[in-house]
Amino acid sequence: MGCSAEHAALAADVLLKSDLRGIDSHGVARLSGYVRLWEKQRINPTPNIRVVHETATTATVDGDAGLGLVVAPFAMQVAMAKAETYGSGWVAIKNSNHFGIAGYHALMAVEKDMIGFAMTNASPLVAPTFANERMLGTNPMCYAFPAGKYPPVIVDMATSAAANGKLEIAQRLGKPVPEGWIQDANGNYTTDPHALKTGGSLLPLGSDREHGSHKGFGLSATVDILSGVLSGANYGPWVPPFVAFMEPSANPPGQGIGHFVGAMRVDGFRPVDEFKDNLDNWIARFKAAQTVDPDQKVIIPGEPELAAELDRQVNGIPLVQAVIDDLNLLAVRFGIERL
Amino acid sequence: MGCSAEHAALAADVLLKSDLRGIDSHGVARLSGYVRLWEKQRINPTPNIRVVHETATTATVDGDAGLGLVVAPFAMQVAMAKAETYGSGWVAIKNSNHFGIAGYHALMAVEKDMIGFAMTNASPLVAPTFANERMLGTNPMCYAFPAGKYPPVIVDMATSAAANGKLEIAQRLGKPVPEGWIQDANGNYTTDPHALKTGGSLLPLGSDREHGSHKGFGLSATVDILSGVLSGANYGPWVPPFVAFMEPSANPPGQGIGHFVGAMRVDGFRPVDEFKDNLDNWIARFKAAQTVDPDQKVIIPGEPELAAELDRQVNGIPLVQAVIDDLNLLAVRFGIERL
Repeated sequence: MGCSAEHAALAADVLLKSDLRGIDSHGVARLSGYVRLWEKQRINPTPNIRVVHETATTATVDGDAGLGLVVAPFAMQVAMAKAETYGSGWVAIKNSNHFGIAGYHALMAVEKDMIGFAMTNASPLVAPTFANERMLGTNPMCYAFPAGKYPPVIVDMATSAAANGKLEIAQRLGKPVPEGWIQDANGNYTTDPHALKTGGSLLPLGSDREHGSHKGFGLSATVDILSGVLSGANYGPWVPPFVAFMEPSANPPGQGIGHFVGAMRVDGFRPVDEFKDNLDNWIARFKAAQTVDPDQKVIIPGEPELAAELDRQVNGIPLVQAVIDDLNLLAVRFGIERL
Repeated sequence: MGCSAEHAALAADVLLKSDLRGIDSHGVARLSGYVRLWEKQRINPTPNIRVVHETATTATVDGDAGLGLVVAPFAMQVAMAKAETYGSGWVAIKNSNHFGIAGYHALMAVEKDMIGFAMTNASPLVAPTFANERMLGTNPMCYAFPAGKYPPVIVDMATSAAANGKLEIAQRLGKPVPEGWIQDANGNYTTDPHALKTGGSLLPLGSDREHGSHKGFGLSATVDILSGVLSGANYGPWVPPFVAFMEPSANPPGQGIGHFVGAMRVDGFRPVDEFKDNLDNWIARFKAAQTVDPDQKVIIPGEPELAAELDRQVNGIPLVQAVIDDLNLLAVRFGIERL
């Protein structure tokens, strides 16, 4: 696509990390999607990513329509440099594109004994409580904490009841989805995974008002305001769609999609070893919690992804045939070796 | 109780703000609860609240076992002073007690054109996904954003499917609660609002794994780690109970309960008027979203509480007889005028 070698390597690292961690929906399966956005000139392969506004511990970064996969790590480096000097650093990012998994960026901080934060807005697929219009993305948020003898605690979650990736799996298999994930055009629960094609929408975490969907909406709104409104990116229904066949809004209020990242030094609050000892104790206690099924222990946030990573580092990343075919088409097109 | 006049006035302000905003569970109804904790010497009426560790933009505050109602505003002032100078400020608080509504503290920042954050851990009532042991509080988080012509956007939410206050209302009325709010001692959904007395627990936002309860658990864990593990307060099942008739854990890993607050200057990211214009546009667009029932519009986070405040400023705060009786008992005891 014309990216620098450095950017290409970084973008590949973000995608591979996603596949390694078992989040297949955000890995190399998306590569052809990024290429299609580049073909539509919606991704700039040689962006001038830069800080356009800042204080000692805050900044706004303009991603210059680059790959979010390289824009977000740049912003995280800015946040971490500020945290190194002042204790914390916070960066809002505008004019970017899809940034892969939030966990990649938050984990950059954890490696430096910082607490990492990363969130992004995304193509509108989710209806707020009471609405039957897609107003918000699945807007993920990630919080990552360094532990001592245990792996880091990584909360990395879509703020919708179900991630869009899970819906896509059900669509491919033609299987019904649980009630509470999506609604049809009239705002009724449906189990038809294809309901989004006929005016349906994903539901916020909580599924309905009685079970707290206004909280899922509130979390998603928070991600949208920090990522979009604070940075000068688009927000709400104006966030440009990831799929290249859908045109972005003609009169958008901002630039591209938005992210928000941050880092806080653990030793800005207490000595690192004390924090890690206590977080280890927290983890051990939660792993020992009494469970309904004695064989199903409490899962510490980040554990399943780490288990996938350890397995796939050894056994490789399984790819479905559709993804292999997709990558081979790209290989032919760009004149590189097929899988 | 022996509080200074300044602390008494501040604590009263926090409680009254809760009642004004329609959050009756956290207002003067709790006054006798604080008094009982003071009788047990678990609340220090004359605390030496102080910063015990800091960098330019981070700090840990020791609440000296004071009322959270005065400890949290102190910490928020520290965060805001740091934000004034460096763009952002973040304070973890240990050795505190129940801090009232999170929104009070976050709104302090909004008045200065900052984005406010406030969260707290709390008495263990919530079971993580797969568990049937109470390991976490309802651990609320609040994000507050200043708007222009519209009121601020305030996301202030328990990270459980239902707040404990809603359960208490059902208990008083003897009414069943919806499935998905609580489970019995065996981990089965129950509609019996008294199930917590027989080993049951509240469920995380999402209710069950299929609907994302691991996300609610992850959010609650985030609140617990930032409030408790980062500050040196207690965390998880060791958080001291609010009710005075339950004894705190004999060998706690930390001090008191923990909070986490923060403030970021809006103009650390973009000019305040630009941000407010865009947030107004965000609010207007969400208020205009297509809804299932045309008479039920999308509710912007913070709107119901503001409506209650405007109403109660004019018409007064309705109190149920049990609360009036409770306050009159206190009045007799402390030799002040009855209601």
